[in-house]
Amino acid sequence: MSTRKKLTLFNDPIYGFITIPSPLIFELIEHSYFQRLRRITQMGMSYIVFPGAHHTRFHHAIGCMYLMQKAVQVLRFKDISILPEEEEALYAAILLHDIGHGPFSHALEHSIVDGVHHEDISLLFMQELNTNFNDRLTLAIQIFSDKYHKKFLHQLVSGQLDMDRLDYLRRDSFYTGVSEGNINTERLITMLNVHEDTLVVESKGIYSVEKFIVARRLMYWSVYLHKTSLVAEQMLLNLLKRAKELYLKGIEIKASPSLLYFFDNPNKAFDGEALKMFARLDDYDIIQAVKLWCDHDDIVINRLSNMIIDRSLLKIKIREKPFKSSTLQKKRAKVMKHFGISEEEAAYFVINGAISNQAYSTEKENINMLSKSGKLVDVAKASDQLNIEALSNLVSKHYLCYPKGKHY
Amino acid sequence: MSTRKKLTLFNDPIYGFITIPSPLIFELIEHSYFQRLRRITQMGMSYIVFPGAHHTRFHHAIGCMYLMQKAVQVLRFKDISILPEEEEALYAAILLHDIGHGPFSHALEHSIVDGVHHEDISLLFMQELNTNFNDRLTLAIQIFSDKYHKKFLHQLVSGQLDMDRLDYLRRDSFYTGVSEGNINTERLITMLNVHEDTLVVESKGIYSVEKFIVARRLMYWSVYLHKTSLVAEQMLLNLLKRAKELYLKGIEIKASPSLLYFFDNPNKAFDGEALKMFARLDDYDIIQAVKLWCDHDDIVINRLSNMIIDRSLLKIKIREKPFKSSTLQKKRAKVMKHFGISEEEAAYFVINGAISNQAYSTEKENINMLSKSGKLVDVAKASDQLNIEALSNLVSKHYLCYPKGKHY
Amino acid sequence: MSTRKKLTLFNDPIYGFITIPSPLIFELIEHSYFQRLRRITQMGMSYIVFPGAHHTRFHHAIGCMYLMQKAVQVLRFKDISILPEEEEALYAAILLHDIGHGPFSHALEHSIVDGVHHEDISLLFMQELNTNFNDRLTLAIQIFSDKYHKKFLHQLVSGQLDMDRLDYLRRDSFYTGVSEGNINTERLITMLNVHEDTLVVESKGIYSVEKFIVARRLMYWSVYLHKTSLVAEQMLLNLLKRAKELYLKGIEIKASPSLLYFFDNPNKAFDGEALKMFARLDDYDIIQAVKLWCDHDDIVINRLSNMIIDRSLLKIKIREKPFKSSTLQKKRAKVMKHFGISEEEAAYFVINGAISNQAYSTEKENINMLSKSGKLVDVAKASDQLNIEALSNLVSKHYLCYPKGKHY
Amino acid sequence: MSTRKKLTLFNDPIYGFITIPSPLIFELIEHSYFQRLRRITQMGMSYIVFPGAHHTRFHHAIGCMYLMQKAVQVLRFKDISILPEEEEALYAAILLHDIGHGPFSHALEHSIVDGVHHEDISLLFMQELNTNFNDRLTLAIQIFSDKYHKKFLHQLVSGQLDMDRLDYLRRDSFYTGVSEGNINTERLITMLNVHEDTLVVESKGIYSVEKFIVARRLMYWSVYLHKTSLVAEQMLLNLLKRAKELYLKGIEIKASPSLLYFFDNPNKAFDGEALKMFARLDDYDIIQAVKLWCDHDDIVINRLSNMIIDRSLLKIKIREKPFKSSTLQKKRAKVMKHFGISEEEAAYFVINGAISNQAYSTEKENINMLSKSGKLVDVAKASDQLNIEALSNLVSKHYLCYPKGKHY
Repeated sequence: MSTRKKLTLFNDPIYGFITIPSPLIFELIEHSYFQRLRRITQMGMSYIVFPGAHHTRFHHAIGCMYLMQKAVQVLRFKDISILPEEEEALYAAILLHDIGHGPFSHALEHSIVDGVHHEDISLLFMQELNTNFNDRLTLAIQIFSDKYHKKFLHQLVSGQLDMDRLDYLRRDSFYTGVSEGNINTERLITMLNVHEDTLVVESKGIYSVEKFIVARRLMYWSVYLHKTSLVAEQMLLNLLKRAKELYLKGIEIKASPSLLYFFDNPNKAFDGEALKMFARLDDYDIIQAVKLWCDHDDIVINRLSNMIIDRSLLKIKIREKPFKSSTLQKKRAKVMKHFGISEEEAAYFVINGAISNQAYSTEKENINMLSKSGKLVDVAKASDQLNIEALSNLVSKHYLCYPKGKHY
Repeated sequence: MSTRKKLTLFNDPIYGFITIPSPLIFELIEHSYFQRLRRITQMGMSYIVFPGAHHTRFHHAIGCMYLMQKAVQVLRFKDISILPEEEEALYAAILLHDIGHGPFSHALEHSIVDGVHHEDISLLFMQELNTNFNDRLTLAIQIFSDKYHKKFLHQLVSGQLDMDRLDYLRRDSFYTGVSEGNINTERLITMLNVHEDTLVVESKGIYSVEKFIVARRLMYWSVYLHKTSLVAEQMLLNLLKRAKELYLKGIEIKASPSLLYFFDNPNKAFDGEALKMFARLDDYDIIQAVKLWCDHDDIVINRLSNMIIDRSLLKIKIREKPFKSSTLQKKRAKVMKHFGISEEEAAYFVINGAISNQAYSTEKENINMLSKSGKLVDVAKASDQLNIEALSNLVSKHYLCYPKGKHY
Repeated sequence: MSTRKKLTLFNDPIYGFITIPSPLIFELIEHSYFQRLRRITQMGMSYIVFPGAHHTRFHHAIGCMYLMQKAVQVLRFKDISILPEEEEALYAAILLHDIGHGPFSHALEHSIVDGVHHEDISLLFMQELNTNFNDRLTLAIQIFSDKYHKKFLHQLVSGQLDMDRLDYLRRDSFYTGVSEGNINTERLITMLNVHEDTLVVESKGIYSVEKFIVARRLMYWSVYLHKTSLVAEQMLLNLLKRAKELYLKGIEIKASPSLLYFFDNPNKAFDGEALKMFARLDDYDIIQAVKLWCDHDDIVINRLSNMIIDRSLLKIKIREKPFKSSTLQKKRAKVMKHFGISEEEAAYFVINGAISNQAYSTEKENINMLSKSGKLVDVAKASDQLNIEALSNLVSKHYLCYPKGKHY
Repeated sequence: MSTRKKLTLFNDPIYGFITIPSPLIFELIEHSYFQRLRRITQMGMSYIVFPGAHHTRFHHAIGCMYLMQKAVQVLRFKDISILPEEEEALYAAILLHDIGHGPFSHALEHSIVDGVHHEDISLLFMQELNTNFNDRLTLAIQIFSDKYHKKFLHQLVSGQLDMDRLDYLRRDSFYTGVSEGNINTERLITMLNVHEDTLVVESKGIYSVEKFIVARRLMYWSVYLHKTSLVAEQMLLNLLKRAKELYLKGIEIKASPSLLYFFDNPNKAFDGEALKMFARLDDYDIIQAVKLWCDHDDIVINRLSNMIIDRSLLKIKIREKPFKSSTLQKKRAKVMKHFGISEEEAAYFVINGAISNQAYSTEKENINMLSKSGKLVDVAKASDQLNIEALSNLVSKHYLCYPKGKHY
């Protein structure tokens, strides 16, 4: 078909040229639902610390699809059967796996739409698209929802070593310039195999898997949970909370219709109408609202908006032990006194919480290594030396944000 | 002073770590005028073709400052005197050289603010900042405006081989993934020298300069003037023109106060008030307005907005000869008939124009090579073989954009 | 077949993993004739200037084969027919195209074996291997010798844009660290097509081709003809000439049997015996001989050997005009007096010659661009601006090498 | 001084341009002892697996010097006092730290010169050079030998995070193409500090240090101890052992005078004469000897030489448990029978041994982290999760090499 013959290509600074594998995939990429991802930043507000990190969910999804092409090639070479229709379904599934992400990706998840995980919204979008595309996405949806009989196909889309993780670690490391987070996606994919319908890594890949886990840990603590983007995101969350609160009290809040829709319907089921409004919502609604709010009368909205826009962030402290409530009270009292506001209002400027990460989480499943004798072994057992079990402990840290000198 | 001792760093995917050289520079970067550049994309709408190209003017300015540090180091090593205050002024000047850029950088220049070049606005911002910073920017402004007695300092900020060009060619090549545009900034800087107060390249650098000129030419035709971003930008320009037109006729146009301010004051002098409003204007005002206009009643605004947001662009043809007016008329007639609109309205969908580029322009000045015998030679003469004079011809091409099948 | 299933891979710092496409190719790589290329440096003595440039003909040949795999993939995608047996023949031909290179590649060509071009020796090796491999290389040999009816296959192996050039420019640029020489092999290959049995570049590739020509020019003058490696190679040539001369006069010269064989048989036809001896000859024979000669009684051999080993090279001057014979005589007279040697001997230390390069040579053929209207145009005509015809002029320079202070 | 003003540069594919910091350093690099390192490969026979890994000790030493320049810059920025004479001594010490390496670096250590560590030979060379350079290396030698009162200077040259390790991990990762071994040298150096005369890493560098340790572990098991280079090196060791044995029995063994000197003097003290002979010994003596031995009458020498030159290596098995002596006997019996040789001779073809590595060895010292409260903590304690203590266990594996099908 002629669309293919044109050899439609994306230029990717990481992988070089990316080819679009089929007309269906081409049409999915052209769809406005997918184009929306161009306006959703991959790493929330991390660009506030890493000025190169303005890459989008759109680019990430295209990158995942590229890696999936490589994975299919490698597995077929190893005589793993993947039918042509399964192949296309894999591409569609990985392309759309993040289509349900809202503004600033994870940063604002559960704030604008409460209680609905982005993967559930992705599924709703996929079902909607399936209707538009005459059921050509049915198999993709089955694989995405883990309802297809070949389990390893789902694992390529969502699992310990799925194409999503392989792309985002590499891409985020690339665009932030934190090169230690870099992983060798090509090598990891080359070592993939399937054993008893389970995606496995061949035994000689043990050091690459170890490296992958340690790189992921580094990216979490040094990048994703970096204290400066953490404080910026917490401020934005508090700002949106305040704006919604005042809006529901009847105070005028300027914002786009789609954002106001979600302010208005905090606990409504996520139906077709919600999906349509969500499809219009992206980073621009949020930032533009924050810019408008810089002149708002409410001191909380006004100050937080200006602080975010001018990057004049609250001070943040991180430590292993929780902060005492007396510390919080003291900070809040100072804010109350300075701004002449209530304790409830002061709480928007003194933010307290915890972050945590497991470098190797086995909640869903293990990373399975295929030993030379043909047995499956959890990577935590396969590593002769690196104590991966220790890496599966949950590490938590506590933070406290509050105004510093220049904010008064 | 303690700010320096903290070794404040930026992570740059291209150069690695970038150090902030002095407290003044630190404060300039922290200023809200400079922070605004985080919300202005470096390459206009090029990301529509090159999905990695979301880098900002902020990042570019920081990169220029880094290259300036290298240039100062190299020139001092060659015994060229640069005083400490001149050094800091160079950093301030290059950091602020683009601070007057409006939304989408060059793409919308001369549309929102007509008749004022971005460099003039940069100068206004610098003068405003100079007041805030107690005249600590006076020398930077002199160098920027070429009013300082050491001419080569100005050439480092704005000239044939200034740090601006060296950074943007490399950075744009990096983020688009068009690696042929890449230049070896390090080598070019290493070969800089000063002769009779003129910035020169040492003779052995001739091949690097040739390569620089050819890379620049390639970037213009393959990237900056790429037909797909060209059509997107022309559509955006037409959309803004239409919106302003209707707004001035009294029809309701939703947009941010800052954008409406410039709709309202098309021919006003660019005074202090304009500067304040301009300082609030960035890509987000534009894109968010376009999103709101997707529901507008006017068919021109409505269709162009939806086309831009959904990336369903007009078809574009490029060729060496101008298009005939009869061709245009035919295209317009088709649009008039299909949408049932006037010829004037149809003209918004049938766009005609020309693009041109000189790979090596000597308008301002030459690239001066320093021959071994100590004479200055224009690079167009120094190259033994590459016909650089031919490269200084102006090449022009003509384009025509119009709706295709799916738009009807 | 099981050899393939093992997914035998090479790690290439440039391309990532390289897969061996078939058992025949695997066996060719394993053959001792091909393994010899591991001991032949790609860039002669360039490592004396660029300490990273120790890469070998072996690695280059493997890289060419990788690019050929990409080219086959792209052309087939564009519906150009390449039969499976033609595909394998292409891999064999490009893999073996340099198998006839002797020690230090081009640097010593025509000195050890006079009057025989390395491509002729490659052909002899291929014919010898064809006998060993039961005629499985017949088609590869036809393509290599341009005797196959599909001409474009030969052009992929040897032509203006063959895989050889694409790999060596990129590889040499990478290992020397001269990043301006870098070319985007992936983009160039993506733009290849076949028109009337001729390998062409699609019209939009014009800027990449221009860039390729300018990069090649830069690599010649800045790297391949770098004055320091030039002088080193000239000294080595003179040393070998002197050694052979004395050897033929009966003076004892220590060297490996294979090197002495070629000293002994300067004008013999290159027969089967010569091929066997040649197959044992590599950089190690040369360097080890030079090391042994550091203690030789003959002052010419002694001094040149020590100078080369200790990198205490002659001084070299390069200029556009030839040097006068009186200049040479003066230099020689000084050497004669200082070392107390004859004029003939002194001539070994005062070396005079010329180098030349054409950035775009059409001797063999043109670079053909495929215009949108389907016509073939020579790139020199297709470029709207870059004067490629000027680039096809032959540029020559003259050099003079002689001892400086520390050699006396 | 004018040497500096010339801005002598090396092109490094990894770091870009490397500047030579002083005339003394320039002269050291020019010295024939240092130039010899151009003929010693950094990674022994690893190029047999990783065809890009032909980089030399010369290049590594230059790279270390570059990193040392960066380290001095960072530490001085943090107000750590390093006097100009200490700075130059650091550069000299790191430049010469590997000057005592013999052919194939670690691969043949303890075989050609028994019982003398390469660092001891480096010291002898430095003392010899110190005499030539009028005691200008005295301070460098003190730092190198850890006899200078500022201990942290020695740690920069030889310690857990010395410039040697930082360069070799990065360089070996680069040239092999095993990108997972890559470390961010720039970030690690940026986080260095000195506390109580001890080189420390600032606490926020913990994830980079973890990553460094895991990358080092990966490089050991995947690259340095790769089974194919292991077998090649064991074969070479056995071949040299056999050659020496026969030579001492009076059988003719062709080899360079310097190699024969060390065959002749197996247990002699390493005196001035030995140093002179050692200074002439490099990879070329070894490979050229092996090539000559391909025609030797002794079957052990003959076969091993041909196997090495043609890369027709013994089969190798690696496992965690030692191999039984009965397994060895069976393999040897087969070899004895096939070749008609004695058990003693057969032992040269059936090679058994163990390899081991500690990812984090605290034998010499710890990696010291500087906590925020200003205390020194061993990294094994500082890491909240990664079990670095586990990484300090010694991991051992056993190997067995023997002829396979094609060798019979």
